[in-house]
Amino acid sequence: MNKITTDILIIGAGPSGLVAAATAHENYPDKTIIVVKEDQKGQVPCGIPYVFGEILNDVEKNAMPCGGDMPNITKIVDTIQSVDIDAKIATGIEHSIVFDKLIFATGSISFVHPSFEDAVILENVFTIEKKYEEVKRLKEYLQDKQKVVIIGTGFIGVELAEQLQSVGKEVTIIGGRHILANSFDVDMAIKAEEIMRSKGIRLALGQHAKTILRHDNRARGIELFDGNTIEADVIILATGYQPNTQLAQEAGLKLARYGGIWVDEYMRTRNKNIFAVGDCCGRRDFITRDPSKVMLASTSAAEARVAGSSLYQLKNLKGFNGTIAIFSTMIGDRAFASAGVTQDRAEEENIDYVTGYFEGMNRHPSTIGDASKQSVKLIAMRNSGQVIGGQVIGDKEAGEIINIIGLAIEAGLTIHNIISLQVATQPLLTAAPTTYPIIKAAQNCLIAHR
Amino acid sequence: MNKITTDILIIGAGPSGLVAAATAHENYPDKTIIVVKEDQKGQVPCGIPYVFGEILNDVEKNAMPCGGDMPNITKIVDTIQSVDIDAKIATGIEHSIVFDKLIFATGSISFVHPSFEDAVILENVFTIEKKYEEVKRLKEYLQDKQKVVIIGTGFIGVELAEQLQSVGKEVTIIGGRHILANSFDVDMAIKAEEIMRSKGIRLALGQHAKTILRHDNRARGIELFDGNTIEADVIILATGYQPNTQLAQEAGLKLARYGGIWVDEYMRTRNKNIFAVGDCCGRRDFITRDPSKVMLASTSAAEARVAGSSLYQLKNLKGFNGTIAIFSTMIGDRAFASAGVTQDRAEEENIDYVTGYFEGMNRHPSTIGDASKQSVKLIAMRNSGQVIGGQVIGDKEAGEIINIIGLAIEAGLTIHNIISLQVATQPLLTAAPTTYPIIKAAQNCLIAHR
Repeated sequence: MNKITTDILIIGAGPSGLVAAATAHENYPDKTIIVVKEDQKGQVPCGIPYVFGEILNDVEKNAMPCGGDMPNITKIVDTIQSVDIDAKIATGIEHSIVFDKLIFATGSISFVHPSFEDAVILENVFTIEKKYEEVKRLKEYLQDKQKVVIIGTGFIGVELAEQLQSVGKEVTIIGGRHILANSFDVDMAIKAEEIMRSKGIRLALGQHAKTILRHDNRARGIELFDGNTIEADVIILATGYQPNTQLAQEAGLKLARYGGIWVDEYMRTRNKNIFAVGDCCGRRDFITRDPSKVMLASTSAAEARVAGSSLYQLKNLKGFNGTIAIFSTMIGDRAFASAGVTQDRAEEENIDYVTGYFEGMNRHPSTIGDASKQSVKLIAMRNSGQVIGGQVIGDKEAGEIINIIGLAIEAGLTIHNIISLQVATQPLLTAAPTTYPIIKAAQNCLIAHR
Repeated sequence: MNKITTDILIIGAGPSGLVAAATAHENYPDKTIIVVKEDQKGQVPCGIPYVFGEILNDVEKNAMPCGGDMPNITKIVDTIQSVDIDAKIATGIEHSIVFDKLIFATGSISFVHPSFEDAVILENVFTIEKKYEEVKRLKEYLQDKQKVVIIGTGFIGVELAEQLQSVGKEVTIIGGRHILANSFDVDMAIKAEEIMRSKGIRLALGQHAKTILRHDNRARGIELFDGNTIEADVIILATGYQPNTQLAQEAGLKLARYGGIWVDEYMRTRNKNIFAVGDCCGRRDFITRDPSKVMLASTSAAEARVAGSSLYQLKNLKGFNGTIAIFSTMIGDRAFASAGVTQDRAEEENIDYVTGYFEGMNRHPSTIGDASKQSVKLIAMRNSGQVIGGQVIGDKEAGEIINIIGLAIEAGLTIHNIISLQVATQPLLTAAPTTYPIIKAAQNCLIAHR
């Protein structure tokens, strides 16, 4: 057992752990920092679906750059098995690490519904774990298989479905009434569904898997609640993730609703020397202030930047915050992006809202060769006009357009601020200044308000 | 002479006139609106350079959609020759229009340095006017010409140079030490210059044209101040624009410094019934509050939205404003974009600033097929941390990344706000959450601050 002493210890080397380490070093360059990771090789979490198609097509190509470029941070491969918070010692299999400040960045593990818990042991039933060996195992297993059934219509399920279909698999995806329902309203989601259907992906929506049918040690298909069955060579459960908090729990830390480690707005646990960031910590929704189940690397990175700069002193007043659930993906050659609350969510939360929608072109004039449609939907508080949600469909730049909307939400801007916003427009790059979609959608919110 | 009466009269049908008309209709749906335009056919102003290359390659393809889609707005082709502000009558060649509210949207005309004023009458010396017939005339004239000299390294000159080179012309561009000097610092501008040189465009930088050499009724070249001469079949003066205010001036309206129509923050002239928007009005800089010469369609559109909603009553308090000079273009296959002040400008204005620079990749992992470099430079006030400028180089999405920075500037956000910003990130669409370039540049501002 190696005994080591460090100023700052970070458990976990996913996006939140690495960003926390980098930020801690920037803020406290004289402190020693150790990051403990479970595996030598990592995976970029959001790149995992693309390993299964032709975009990456190789587990190695999705390697997480775990830090050859972080010269000031020591990385140790070990599995921490216990943390003594009072004595400030973390104990792994090979190392015992004495720390002054500790950041839990232990991430999340897949959530499996109780009715499928006994099926995950079957050789052809998989969850998507964010681990090199697991991704590799599934990739190899799929090699000579044809019929894939994916349970879950969140973004991992949807991205995976498209990638597997693109390499010739027969893919069925099973889930709620509409795909990506946490991020998109029906009017936007159906456009994504159309693209998926046109590619030959079978969408079994509004269906729910009742049981996994077996034959010997293998699953042979799924029985739906309506009695129909779907045959499968491989079943993938993409039914979400849960905070990985066993270690923190055993260390005596308090958990929040939905099982994440309880933290304050500065990512501190009840113990001011112990922080938690990323999917393992409890989150709130920026708009509703309710506990949130959102898990996104970008939210994790934001939390890690707050923690990394707050380890020894609080440096910036954090006001109203929480996750704005800002998210983007590609379906076919269209980007779909969302931030804040959807209209459906606003209804559920009893928010008095208005919406504005605009569809235009992403170049001007629209005779520019690569011009394509671009649509924006905004959701705003009826009284104050504050922007609380947005959804975008367009070409790849939609991935950044949502970040404009996200910033507007975080900064508490109103549709009036948006209407007189100055935006750079250029024929080859953007919509026209006269029909810039965020501004037009804001104007349509105003018309809806009357 | 047709005598007509309208509630709202708008003189000019460029972007600012059309946006003012649309916004006025949205805000005052019961009012009658007339837009007077000089020509039946218009041109999308920022599309003009692309008419000269293969991207549009046709004046018709750059037609301004002057409103087949604006059913509630009457368009009249005429040239207004005088406005009686007290009697509220505008008189054209064929129409006499009685109005209640008037918006000047008369735009800008090219600026020609006094030493070249007598050269513009030559058959092969051109300015770039935003008129269908003028663009067509130059396009046709260039058909069988080879050597083109462009004077002026602003964005019109640079875009035009690239387009003409792309269709086989020999292009020389003459101007200051670096191209696009109002929008980019030297460290960013040299990257644009490298691309232009690699395409075979001759950059005569730090040179100034002394005189245009003639032979009969044609220019044959340019003599520089260093005594060298450059031969030319065609000379294009791309030396900026000036407000088109003759009509307003004759009507007795007060002008601002640099010759634009003086307006308050609601785009009202001294007469509360008369407004001015777009390039014809006087502007201030958002950061320095100084009078500004910036002319951009996006600024014009923002002004038009303010005017269109303020015609009968002020509806929203406009605070600190002015142009943030937000702008983007393509050079080669790279997008260059800028907002707010450059570092050079901050020096001139005696601003106590810090800068942060970050270069990364626009996809993650960087093994994604279309991944390319993306760099962001931020300029912030040293004390308050407020973001006052940004420059971006990247793939096409840089055209929207600059709008995130622009919003941060307009909303008065600080580098601390940016550091904990939540951004959507996705392998196929954006940089990694760990290395999102605006956030990393903000962190580097903070390091510079120490």
